[in-house]
Amino acid sequence: MEAQNDIEENNKEFTEECTKLLMAMSDALYVIGGKWKLMIIIAMARGNNRFTELQKKVTGISARVLSSELKELELNGFIIKKVSVGYPVIIEYQLLPYSETLEEMVGAMTRWGMQHREKIKNDK
Amino acid sequence: MEAQNDIEENNKEFTEECTKLLMAMSDALYVIGGKWKLMIIIAMARGNNRFTELQKKVTGISARVLSSELKELELNGFIIKKVSVGYPVIIEYQLLPYSETLEEMVGAMTRWGMQHREKIKNDK
Repeated sequence: MEAQNDIEENNKEFTEECTKLLMAMSDALYVIGGKWKLMIIIAMARGNNRFTELQKKVTGISARVLSSELKELELNGFIIKKVSVGYPVIIEYQLLPYSETLEEMVGAMTRWGMQHREKIKNDK
Repeated sequence: MEAQNDIEENNKEFTEECTKLLMAMSDALYVIGGKWKLMIIIAMARGNNRFTELQKKVTGISARVLSSELKELELNGFIIKKVSVGYPVIIEYQLLPYSETLEEMVGAMTRWGMQHREKIKNDK
């Protein structure tokens, strides 16, 4: 009977852990999910701070989508939009310290992408 | 002049590294991107192997989408669909060793999700 309780207790913990992980993944995907946000962050971390630079660097993104992704990244506190006074007006996007919390995730994903490049190319 | 060349060389390397990282991220997102694949993998890694179990566990996913996501995960070699002989027929999905290569990424993303839960809740 005690063994049975132990098993049930373990199952319950296992189920709760699963739910917790799913919730965490869902939260992460809610904020940085989609095709573009992490790519924009990578491009910005390597010195592409103007809208046109970003659009050129992040291949395939349309101006409309880039604009809306930048707005969401700003809303979530990852980047800031800086508008210079003067003529011509210069608009630059800069990473905020909060974006550094993404480093582990970005590292893991790009490492995986590099390691599995050949297989992915064949699957495409 | 030499210094100028060094700067140009550094800039070139920097740009190439950026392109390489963007390509790797794009590859990774091509295979495991979207709202559901990594969540399905988490649920399967914790013993949910039947279609109905997965649908229950991965909150919000429709049967149609789950079915198509499972097919893609199978095509990409992360899981296998096992159909038992007998009556009733039992269909189970099992993780293949290739799915273990996702562990670092899944770990990084769920840790981030857990650490930033409060902020994400407030942003929602």
